[in-house]
Amino acid sequence: MPTHSDLAFANRLADAAGEAIRPLFRGSWEQEQKSDSTFVTEADRAAEAAMRALIEAEHPDDGIFGEEYGIRNESAGRRWVLDPIDGTTSFIAGRPIFGTLIALLQDGFPVLGIIDQPIGRERWAGFSGRETTFNGKPVRSAPCRALGDAVLATTTPHQFSDHEADHFMGLAKSVAERKIIYGGDCYNYGLVASGHVDLVCEAGLKLHDFAALAPIVEGAGGLMCDWSGEPLHAGSDGNVLAIGDPARLEDVLEAMGLAE
Amino acid sequence: MPTHSDLAFANRLADAAGEAIRPLFRGSWEQEQKSDSTFVTEADRAAEAAMRALIEAEHPDDGIFGEEYGIRNESAGRRWVLDPIDGTTSFIAGRPIFGTLIALLQDGFPVLGIIDQPIGRERWAGFSGRETTFNGKPVRSAPCRALGDAVLATTTPHQFSDHEADHFMGLAKSVAERKIIYGGDCYNYGLVASGHVDLVCEAGLKLHDFAALAPIVEGAGGLMCDWSGEPLHAGSDGNVLAIGDPARLEDVLEAMGLAE
Repeated sequence: MPTHSDLAFANRLADAAGEAIRPLFRGSWEQEQKSDSTFVTEADRAAEAAMRALIEAEHPDDGIFGEEYGIRNESAGRRWVLDPIDGTTSFIAGRPIFGTLIALLQDGFPVLGIIDQPIGRERWAGFSGRETTFNGKPVRSAPCRALGDAVLATTTPHQFSDHEADHFMGLAKSVAERKIIYGGDCYNYGLVASGHVDLVCEAGLKLHDFAALAPIVEGAGGLMCDWSGEPLHAGSDGNVLAIGDPARLEDVLEAMGLAE
Repeated sequence: MPTHSDLAFANRLADAAGEAIRPLFRGSWEQEQKSDSTFVTEADRAAEAAMRALIEAEHPDDGIFGEEYGIRNESAGRRWVLDPIDGTTSFIAGRPIFGTLIALLQDGFPVLGIIDQPIGRERWAGFSGRETTFNGKPVRSAPCRALGDAVLATTTPHQFSDHEADHFMGLAKSVAERKIIYGGDCYNYGLVASGHVDLVCEAGLKLHDFAALAPIVEGAGGLMCDWSGEPLHAGSDGNVLAIGDPARLEDVLEAMGLAE
């Protein structure tokens, strides 16, 4: 189980990432003669390097799985999973709804997670067995009596294969069309924890995309699972669901044509 | 032509709308026993009422076309077009990328526009013959050498009829898939003016959705038009394009299969 000092350390990692990212957000092509893609690459690398330096200095035996700089101490029981900028297109487009993702895996299962939005200075933190917090205050996911009442979020329709799109559209048809919201990446999962979004459905996520999310959604009373309803772990296939009200799990799988 | 006092007045309208909206953003279902849909309806109405009260008190001869409370002085040469919350689903979902839209039409053509994001306190203002500003500082849309370099934004794939979706997908296929961004509503057009987004393509917008956008995008050096490349006015059909680099207009229409 993670300790409070692990959470304090994870908060310092997020602080360091934010310091690296903020100066490069909405970088000006007029002044810099760089493309937005160059800014995001610089921000991604600088943020991950800052986090890795802290882990290597203070927890040299921990493993690291980073989106930009790869794996260190692969066989460690404790592994930090880092995605310095989840939502790179949002970053490029100047939208303050991307995030830095930090997870601690214990024997392959995520036990601590942070979503940090460094521009709006918004931070969700989840931690096994504790209530999820948003900027330090406890939050709860919302009750949802029926799918027809739900707000459903997904980042982009292009993430789904044809087959996956059929499952997603089954879910989309069961909610009100004006309550389907696109874009958002990790930020959507924070909003599930805070009770504003009811469902997120995505496909093909990588470990660094989803590891931080489960402790946050679940510590707020919600559920995160794969498209079979199974808990997420390091070997999950990356098709994920976040469900603010766990009582809706069967309805979601049925709407997607995935109920057994 | 609008005057500086018109712009100062429009800024006061946006201030009044923001005051009405901020307390209702991310309203808590735990404390209030209200649905998010109730909060957005309250915020929409309170913001428009605040703006209408100012117009009626200080410019009683001006017309008003409001999304919530309808039309006043329909035949006036000067008409204010108000959309208190553009992006209601973003508001409901707790994302700070919705906006208040304020336009001044002169004889049916938009000559002044404001996009105000009251949570992040971000404001774009455009004004015929002047440079567009973001929080008071001039901004410019970005050069774009080819569609393959462009960031393309659109709010939701569900806005398009089958026929319209074919045109949109033609454009989507001409840009890099990872540079297509969904969600965002009016906020995307502000990001075109600031040079972070290159293209926005949408269908079925109402006058209150698009009237404020044209002076902002055009005052930053970009182009706004309908899907035939014609300027927007009160009678436009609501299929709109925002193009940060006007040199790409023909490429966009060709990619959409709309070139003559």
